[in-house]
Amino acid sequence: MVHFNTNCFFAMVRSRRKITARLPCRSKPMKSDRRSTLYAALADEIAGMISAGTLRSGDKLPSLRELRDRRGVSLSTVTEAFRMLEDRGLIEARPQSGFFVRQKLSEPPPRSRPSTTPAAVTVNRRLWDYLQLTRGRQQGFCYAVMAPQCFPNVQLQKLMNEALRDSPTLLSKYGGTRGLEVLRRQIARHAMEWGGRFNADDVQITAGGIEALNLALRAVTQPGDVVAVESPTYFGLLQLFESMGLKALEIPTDPEQGVSLTALDLAVRDGAVAACVLMPNFSNPTGSLMSDEAKQRLVKLLDEHSVPLIEDDIYGEFYQGRERPRPAKAFDETGNVLYVASYTKLVAPGMRVGHIIPGRYRSQVEILKYINTFSTPAVMQLTLARFLESGGHDHHMRRMRRLCTDQMARLNDGLARYFPEGTRWTRPKGGYMCWVKLPAGVDSTRLLETSVEEGISFAPGPLFSARNAYRNYLRLCVGEPWCEATEAKLKRLGELARQQLDNGAKAPFADTGNLFELG
Amino acid sequence: MVHFNTNCFFAMVRSRRKITARLPCRSKPMKSDRRSTLYAALADEIAGMISAGTLRSGDKLPSLRELRDRRGVSLSTVTEAFRMLEDRGLIEARPQSGFFVRQKLSEPPPRSRPSTTPAAVTVNRRLWDYLQLTRGRQQGFCYAVMAPQCFPNVQLQKLMNEALRDSPTLLSKYGGTRGLEVLRRQIARHAMEWGGRFNADDVQITAGGIEALNLALRAVTQPGDVVAVESPTYFGLLQLFESMGLKALEIPTDPEQGVSLTALDLAVRDGAVAACVLMPNFSNPTGSLMSDEAKQRLVKLLDEHSVPLIEDDIYGEFYQGRERPRPAKAFDETGNVLYVASYTKLVAPGMRVGHIIPGRYRSQVEILKYINTFSTPAVMQLTLARFLESGGHDHHMRRMRRLCTDQMARLNDGLARYFPEGTRWTRPKGGYMCWVKLPAGVDSTRLLETSVEEGISFAPGPLFSARNAYRNYLRLCVGEPWCEATEAKLKRLGELARQQLDNGAKAPFADTGNLFELG
Repeated sequence: MVHFNTNCFFAMVRSRRKITARLPCRSKPMKSDRRSTLYAALADEIAGMISAGTLRSGDKLPSLRELRDRRGVSLSTVTEAFRMLEDRGLIEARPQSGFFVRQKLSEPPPRSRPSTTPAAVTVNRRLWDYLQLTRGRQQGFCYAVMAPQCFPNVQLQKLMNEALRDSPTLLSKYGGTRGLEVLRRQIARHAMEWGGRFNADDVQITAGGIEALNLALRAVTQPGDVVAVESPTYFGLLQLFESMGLKALEIPTDPEQGVSLTALDLAVRDGAVAACVLMPNFSNPTGSLMSDEAKQRLVKLLDEHSVPLIEDDIYGEFYQGRERPRPAKAFDETGNVLYVASYTKLVAPGMRVGHIIPGRYRSQVEILKYINTFSTPAVMQLTLARFLESGGHDHHMRRMRRLCTDQMARLNDGLARYFPEGTRWTRPKGGYMCWVKLPAGVDSTRLLETSVEEGISFAPGPLFSARNAYRNYLRLCVGEPWCEATEAKLKRLGELARQQLDNGAKAPFADTGNLFELG
Repeated sequence: MVHFNTNCFFAMVRSRRKITARLPCRSKPMKSDRRSTLYAALADEIAGMISAGTLRSGDKLPSLRELRDRRGVSLSTVTEAFRMLEDRGLIEARPQSGFFVRQKLSEPPPRSRPSTTPAAVTVNRRLWDYLQLTRGRQQGFCYAVMAPQCFPNVQLQKLMNEALRDSPTLLSKYGGTRGLEVLRRQIARHAMEWGGRFNADDVQITAGGIEALNLALRAVTQPGDVVAVESPTYFGLLQLFESMGLKALEIPTDPEQGVSLTALDLAVRDGAVAACVLMPNFSNPTGSLMSDEAKQRLVKLLDEHSVPLIEDDIYGEFYQGRERPRPAKAFDETGNVLYVASYTKLVAPGMRVGHIIPGRYRSQVEILKYINTFSTPAVMQLTLARFLESGGHDHHMRRMRRLCTDQMARLNDGLARYFPEGTRWTRPKGGYMCWVKLPAGVDSTRLLETSVEEGISFAPGPLFSARNAYRNYLRLCVGEPWCEATEAKLKRLGELARQQLDNGAKAPFADTGNLFELG
């Protein structure tokens, strides 16, 4: 289905008038009820289009004024109709954006219950197989990044040309291990928006967010150390553990509220945990969001036990509401939090510029940068600094957030529509990914092997655990603006899951997401 | 001293005629000896200018034809004069470049004799101090990279603008973990020049040479493993060992011939060595060059013992002679060699594009790239690929090699002229760095602390050993085209060394480069 627009909405509304007229009538209204009949009729009309699928979850409704003008009714009639639809849970107001068809609610997957013992990680082979399988395939729901056309390509290109013109030897200089001061200053300034109080010297530039994670981890761990993580957690992180000889301690995590602080408290008490890596804002893969109060408790808890917190805030800017959620770093008073973020997901994946605010681990992080990639291309840094300075960033991010919100609504709608009974999924308040629990019996890796042949890819659940758990889970990313092809792929994926469920009913396997018992 | 040019040479030659005429004459020649007298006189004249310092090591002489025309003598007279000077060891022919004042010979530092037991590495702190000390200071002899003006900035800038224009979303795409095929193909093609037979799939693109080393090391080692290296070796490599929990086994190394294969043979026989990292071509810091025969034996030896060889060939293109030395990889028939190189030093330090040809470790290296920096900026790769394709690279590298040869000759000359008696240094056949052994009693770290205050930096010897050895050694890099300031800095550095030697004579310390005994 193509993106909904006002004109076609009115066309549809008009074409459906006759049908609505043929619907069973209410009791004939009194004259004083005329207005109430009008708004109720309008509400019914729109409700009918929603139930018929003409209007889908996440579709934007025309504005109150537009509808007033086109239908020749009063503003209050339209307002009442929308209020009625809101009360019936069919539409919702979004701040500064207008009214949208409301998403159907799904029960989220249950809180995870991983093993209480640390595990050596062996996702390497699985990840390799996954990469081979999805390499060069159509994107589908695979990549945790927005589509290329969503980024400010023209602006960046212009800024980069200017940067090269202004500094003719920009490509011939290393640009320093810590990164260009002009960019570090912009990042420090930007952090003020979430309550960060830093100066340029507190910031270390990296080659994207993944290098930032690398450096942070190496700064605070030794091979053999135990590191606490959410469960499920980002597979790249687990893979890092494997390559660094670290053990993962998977902590029970609520797919909406984030990591269990009670469980984390128990885990760090015995002194065996060397560090903790979390994504308090829109975790990958679940999209969970910790409350400010939980973040504060988290920072205090880890500080008390001298366990460094590596906070991956790479999706923090993709919030749906009015305010950016604060990262845990905002509550850090001792420098115990290594804050990791990146402009890769925000401004330009191909520029590969991320950063760390490493708190008290600054010198360790800088020296690790020195030996990991030595420096980050200066032309990228200067271009990005100028983009941030220009104010173009704020405008761009508002657009990105609108896109994400829309795409997530479409995904939610499609999951409700096309996926087998018993499927549960998260409804994150930000980001552009969703963690889906299929009914026990569906093997997401096998599902991928089938679906990828039809150009439908995604990340299967077992990638997100050190112990090959979450076999009937999958992560769906919606980085592409929604289109008919996306809708068709999602529908087909649901069908394939249903087929596997039907075929596998003879030999179902356990729901491994809940196999682990919390001691 | 400014760079010598033909015109001022002739001015000097002319101005010295009278002086030459007043020199004691030879016995009066017969008429048939007229030509031989002429060429001998010319040779003497030039020799006199060399011994007086008017002509310095590395200065280019006028061409045969120029000298013939200006002096009104026959071509054979000039040829004979030059031959005479060559025989006397005063000048040397360089292929396709002409005749140059020959460098004074220094005895190289002795072969190293490090400990035979592996050591955990602790250079971290030393490196950090070094970085703090030299940060933001004038370059001096510190950085192992050519100066920004030596690189093809204008061409690259033009190619980058074109790349961005041709691919408008280049900054918004990851570009793939393995790297752009168009660049990998160019690299494979380029490797044919040294006998490499590869295709694009054999190549992995990295964020510079240092990431390439990282990935190669992680692909073949586990924390706790013992890795054999040259002694002295590149401090970044030792720092990598420290961060990865690897132990360094320093192998005796000849500063001209490279690593001792006899010692390496002994080391790998007991099966305790997990991998070996060497720089057979122009090693950092000594500049040593292994012979083809030694490289062949090396590859065979390590293959027989199933010890992977990581070959760092980052300086291989900076050869002084007519032919590029082949890397050990050219003799690898089993895929046991992980070949590491980079266009960082060759084309553009700020582009950060390196590569590995990882042989049989391809999948391990690719997955490590995936989790280290995910991908290398596509715009850099495309720009570089087009530069290589254009043929601009060959022209550029000829110029770079000429610059390096000149700078190294100047350095050699300055060391002979300004440094204390008993100083020994290497005379590499390529690269732009030199390993200097000062007389016992000079502490290079203390020397740096003093010299850096005067804008003279270099890398002190202890950085190049896992055991804080080489205290009276230093590495000098000459990446800047030589100028009066460089000459003055080198002179001053020699003075400071002499001062320390005079002051420290009361409490000399041992020559730690030779403290270790080979068992």
